[in-house]
Amino acid sequence: MKAEPGSTSVEVVAVRAGAREVRPETIVVEEPLELRLDDEPIAVTMRTPGHDVELAAGFLVTEGIVSDFRVVNSIAHCDETQNVVEIHTEPGASGVRRPEARHFFASSSCGICGKATLEALRTFATPLHADGVRVDAKLLEALPARLRAAQPLFHETGALHAAALFSADGALLCAREDVGRHNAVDKVVGWAALERRLPLAGTILLASGRLGFEIAQKALAAGIPVLAAISGPSSLAVELARENGMTLVAFLRGDAWNVYAGAERIQFS
Amino acid sequence: MKAEPGSTSVEVVAVRAGAREVRPETIVVEEPLELRLDDEPIAVTMRTPGHDVELAAGFLVTEGIVSDFRVVNSIAHCDETQNVVEIHTEPGASGVRRPEARHFFASSSCGICGKATLEALRTFATPLHADGVRVDAKLLEALPARLRAAQPLFHETGALHAAALFSADGALLCAREDVGRHNAVDKVVGWAALERRLPLAGTILLASGRLGFEIAQKALAAGIPVLAAISGPSSLAVELARENGMTLVAFLRGDAWNVYAGAERIQFS
Repeated sequence: MKAEPGSTSVEVVAVRAGAREVRPETIVVEEPLELRLDDEPIAVTMRTPGHDVELAAGFLVTEGIVSDFRVVNSIAHCDETQNVVEIHTEPGASGVRRPEARHFFASSSCGICGKATLEALRTFATPLHADGVRVDAKLLEALPARLRAAQPLFHETGALHAAALFSADGALLCAREDVGRHNAVDKVVGWAALERRLPLAGTILLASGRLGFEIAQKALAAGIPVLAAISGPSSLAVELARENGMTLVAFLRGDAWNVYAGAERIQFS
Repeated sequence: MKAEPGSTSVEVVAVRAGAREVRPETIVVEEPLELRLDDEPIAVTMRTPGHDVELAAGFLVTEGIVSDFRVVNSIAHCDETQNVVEIHTEPGASGVRRPEARHFFASSSCGICGKATLEALRTFATPLHADGVRVDAKLLEALPARLRAAQPLFHETGALHAAALFSADGALLCAREDVGRHNAVDKVVGWAALERRLPLAGTILLASGRLGFEIAQKALAAGIPVLAAISGPSSLAVELARENGMTLVAFLRGDAWNVYAGAERIQFS
């Protein structure tokens, strides 16, 4: 069996009803990626290799580092290693928030990076109240199956997050997988940034797992009006969605699901 | 229904087979926690409130900020808010790695904080080859049910990670839940630090979700020889376990599971 890019094979002891067998097992690849902005390191993230340029592009957008993606001149792997991506911006351009060293707080669960205070967590994004898109309820219910179909690595490794962007009529625009759920979202948003499709008005983002503040914040920064997840949301994700006019759907499983914010965008026939 | 601490109730539109009902739904609370070390902010993490002092204590250990927990004089919420925890160390004590501002890289999926280079990711922890503990295979298979029984918030909200520490004979020592999987591990390790039980020789840590590098690194830093997870591991977690003599079990579901490293610690009857 040829492994997908992003997965690798290791020898394991497989235990099945007490019987043991040494055999190869496919697992997801995780490696660090360092991002450098105009030669200054700004972030290290643990990611599944692949779509690294998109990941970097998305990170710039969803973390509010560039307010206008046109100031980005180049994003590319450095010559020496695939685990470093270098970003160069237009010299002298405004609208680049260079994360000051003092502002690099750590996070042990998500990417609250470059945000210096608790108060600064709600940042830079434009509220979405004006996005008048409507989404059909039956169409929403069909999206999880489309996300699963776009998850080759998950099928192989059972250990990946995924994010998928859909148009309001349910067309799959982009799907990405990663060991980090935030990376999967950044890769999707980065795809859109590189395609000059930002802000993502009229779109739906579906996330495979739980829905915390950071995912909601990233979707908001990208201008995505409808955010849906297979699992449950956190209180802060709901709060952020309600404050900013974002539609938030969670526990989207078959025909049983909940709308936590912005229910006016969902149309029931 | 009285909500557990750590959960809250919000009004949602519940959709069930096309029918809609507005009703309260319980969701997990997520709020930022800022950690201050000797009056300097060192981290912000999104966490489920509760066991914050343990979370701070565990973070100090698993991120290698203190090499000997005895240098920690106090850990307490600040007077003004429950979302800031202040840590004070013995003045002039050695063995405190004060994260320099330059070293605070961000991470959008996990807590590689205060580690300035890709090379520095493998750090400070003592390898576990010398830990001669043995664990019975049948006992391992019984642990997931014990973890689930110790997850009141998950049952209520469906959106939480959990970590549980067991002795080699299967006794539950400590279980914690959090929106962030890394926080759940930090809370457990912090409990042990405050109980002066570090390093955690002869123990088993069971994590509810996927098993990436960061969780393996945190378990290694705490001296835990056997790490198990319900879902799949990443390549870097397996590599770290193999390099450092840690036993790594994943996909622990009923009587079908895999051993990725350190199989010599598992005893089959």
